[in-house]
Amino acid sequence: MCAAYELEKLGIDSVILEPAATAGGRCMTIRGGDKIVETTGATQTCEFDKGQYFNPGPSRFPQWHITMDYCRELGVEIQPFVNLNENAFYYTEGEDRGPLSGKRVRIREAKTDLRGYTAELLSKAIDPEALDAPMTAEDVEKLQDYLTYEGGLNRRSKKYEGHARRGYDSWPGGGFDEGKLANPYALQDLIQAGYGNYFHRANEVEYMSQMFTPVGGMDKIAKAFEAKVGSKIIYGAKAVEIRHRSEGGSRIVYEQDGQKKEMLGDYCICTIPPTILRKLQTDFPFQMKAALNVVPFQNSGKIGLQFKRRFWEEDDSVYGGISWNNLPIGEQWYPSNGFFGKKGIMIGYYIFGPISDQVGRMSPQERIEFALSHGEKVHPQYREEFENAIAFNWATTPHIEGCLAHFPKAMIKTFYPLLINGDKETYVAASWASHVGGWQAGAFEAARFTVKKIYDRVTAA
Amino acid sequence: MCAAYELEKLGIDSVILEPAATAGGRCMTIRGGDKIVETTGATQTCEFDKGQYFNPGPSRFPQWHITMDYCRELGVEIQPFVNLNENAFYYTEGEDRGPLSGKRVRIREAKTDLRGYTAELLSKAIDPEALDAPMTAEDVEKLQDYLTYEGGLNRRSKKYEGHARRGYDSWPGGGFDEGKLANPYALQDLIQAGYGNYFHRANEVEYMSQMFTPVGGMDKIAKAFEAKVGSKIIYGAKAVEIRHRSEGGSRIVYEQDGQKKEMLGDYCICTIPPTILRKLQTDFPFQMKAALNVVPFQNSGKIGLQFKRRFWEEDDSVYGGISWNNLPIGEQWYPSNGFFGKKGIMIGYYIFGPISDQVGRMSPQERIEFALSHGEKVHPQYREEFENAIAFNWATTPHIEGCLAHFPKAMIKTFYPLLINGDKETYVAASWASHVGGWQAGAFEAARFTVKKIYDRVTAA
Repeated sequence: MCAAYELEKLGIDSVILEPAATAGGRCMTIRGGDKIVETTGATQTCEFDKGQYFNPGPSRFPQWHITMDYCRELGVEIQPFVNLNENAFYYTEGEDRGPLSGKRVRIREAKTDLRGYTAELLSKAIDPEALDAPMTAEDVEKLQDYLTYEGGLNRRSKKYEGHARRGYDSWPGGGFDEGKLANPYALQDLIQAGYGNYFHRANEVEYMSQMFTPVGGMDKIAKAFEAKVGSKIIYGAKAVEIRHRSEGGSRIVYEQDGQKKEMLGDYCICTIPPTILRKLQTDFPFQMKAALNVVPFQNSGKIGLQFKRRFWEEDDSVYGGISWNNLPIGEQWYPSNGFFGKKGIMIGYYIFGPISDQVGRMSPQERIEFALSHGEKVHPQYREEFENAIAFNWATTPHIEGCLAHFPKAMIKTFYPLLINGDKETYVAASWASHVGGWQAGAFEAARFTVKKIYDRVTAA
Repeated sequence: MCAAYELEKLGIDSVILEPAATAGGRCMTIRGGDKIVETTGATQTCEFDKGQYFNPGPSRFPQWHITMDYCRELGVEIQPFVNLNENAFYYTEGEDRGPLSGKRVRIREAKTDLRGYTAELLSKAIDPEALDAPMTAEDVEKLQDYLTYEGGLNRRSKKYEGHARRGYDSWPGGGFDEGKLANPYALQDLIQAGYGNYFHRANEVEYMSQMFTPVGGMDKIAKAFEAKVGSKIIYGAKAVEIRHRSEGGSRIVYEQDGQKKEMLGDYCICTIPPTILRKLQTDFPFQMKAALNVVPFQNSGKIGLQFKRRFWEEDDSVYGGISWNNLPIGEQWYPSNGFFGKKGIMIGYYIFGPISDQVGRMSPQERIEFALSHGEKVHPQYREEFENAIAFNWATTPHIEGCLAHFPKAMIKTFYPLLINGDKETYVAASWASHVGGWQAGAFEAARFTVKKIYDRVTAA
């Protein structure tokens, strides 16, 4: 749809063959009443309350993604997506995880303690010569000053002795409630628990503060594009062959209502996921087919759990954000919308690769049990408050059959160009054939790159 | 209002003497058409467009503040307040600020570089024995692993060589746009610029991710309380004397419509700011007056600048958050609401203490020039896009005459109890007489503490 929209701007007409009954692909939002049928036949009907929703595919974007620009351009209202909430939890367990194994720890606690101890260590050990950097005595003093701030060190002793940043045992209030600081955890315990290796989950440039999401669900973007190019879409049209025409141009054979039909065009932009594209009959040359075969298009699974009440807000003062763990569920997300609402949708797992394949082979009911049995370790209220769920699995989603790929770096100079440069009049444009794999922005970027290529050819002709 | 609301719950009636025409005090939101008259006579009429607003007083709260609970209880809708936006800027200038002086640097750049270099330094220098902590060889390996993640170090060399977290010179996209990493700044330059000393501004427990704010303006909280206890409020009633009655109870002399009136009560909860309370005639004992005199109730100033367009969003991809600088303006805030809107209100300075006194003595027009002349160093679009402003100064705000105080720690065991324990039937309850000074939550906490005290006396009697 993005390509059609951009082509239209350039005065180039297009037709979109959409195998599903609605457009948008992985840009999807599930609400009460929606029916999810998998390729296996497994069927779920969403029982979410009115106003509740969840995005099984993309659900957030950073400020630098072109997704922001399209939201602006198409009039899609956005709101902050709470990605990092330091009031949320880390949870790790296992024999090698030390004394904190099986305990949940607030992110603010782990962060303040680890940064504090490492600042203390460095403050004591500082040797600027080791850095091959010219540092005067004054610079070193300023560095020490920075470490004192950064670590929250005792100004006199340069020791980390805990800090209000980690939170209180009892919080400051009125009267004589001056607040009682909690004791820091021991460095050794924190290191063994391994919390520090989750910090970067909110630091990478894709996840940096602040992230955003459309108000009301990610499919607002799909709907906004559909409003622009909907008249070009043939719904329920499943491509089965991608052919070259001897006179130039493309010929697409597709099935609609059980009938084989044909669509002729000067160019073809193919956005079909590699798992499906591999199975189609195409005139692609051998190398291009080989390139398609190396794309590690992996599965992903996400579950939306509706709870009777927002215990994470009411009991734990966690408003939005993510708790990370080393359980098979990986992450637990709290909604960034509807704060103070009676009910709410948590994302109970967000998994990729082999574990998602394994969970994807379970029945929807078993997937729910998988989410609950692990998730209740972090939130004991789970069983009591659980109401219903949608357990989404991309590998068994019709017309998509997978979720995302980052094109292997080792093949970016060899196979990758074969895809994006296309074959004759046929181009591949998709997030997995871009440098922004795994993000909706990648699909937009790939579309724009391809549109530019076609425009150049059309205008040169 | 909070005290009246809580007393009502306990079956205790109350009357509120409110000197202003509206209730809420510093919990205020300014919108187009509002007229601000200072004690000096200086007058400003707000020319903001419809839908634009700014909170001159409290404007955000962390998840642990009781303010959240009152929002829930009173049905005040909240939204995320973007406090930390790593896409915003640091700006420092001065002879001792090194080669980055006068340049704006993205927070993500400064943070990634500083954390990277310090992780590298520590990785090389690590000496766990210096920490008096028991660390096995395996622990040290895990610590090294953490430092590699945290600093974004080269896994092999353990050196910091820049990282995608800091952003790109050209961002990854479609086709062959694989992204070009920007070079890191030198450690020495960063240290001299002093950016690291701003990190904690978003780390302290009051400012930790994620913060919140009411949808539509902070005065939604005041209005929500007013909806509950408005019938108890006598508006335009300015207390001038606080007296004990010989038979027990309090007698308040107040002026209304130029007339002196009296209000008798069993108890008095005084929320008048110390700058004004000091000037009233009271029966407070000498020590309590002395306590009032030591409260360092300081001024604060905040300016709301309406710009013709959101250049921070359109040109710089900064959606909400704060840029910090070492200019006299201190901070620049971007709105957390109305993203993609045509116009927007930035907070052009947020200043305290002596600098705010100095700016407060300026005319509103001079204050605007103060904000623009410094702010344009970070955002050169300022002059071109500026439209109008409200330059708020608390020290010259009628019935308030100041902004906030943190009760001096050294006097918390001596003078502070004299205030909160009150005198006979009169109590002082205010943010500056709580352990949450400078925050709206402090006023609520103080109110609840005092209500509890009165309830205990009433029920014991």
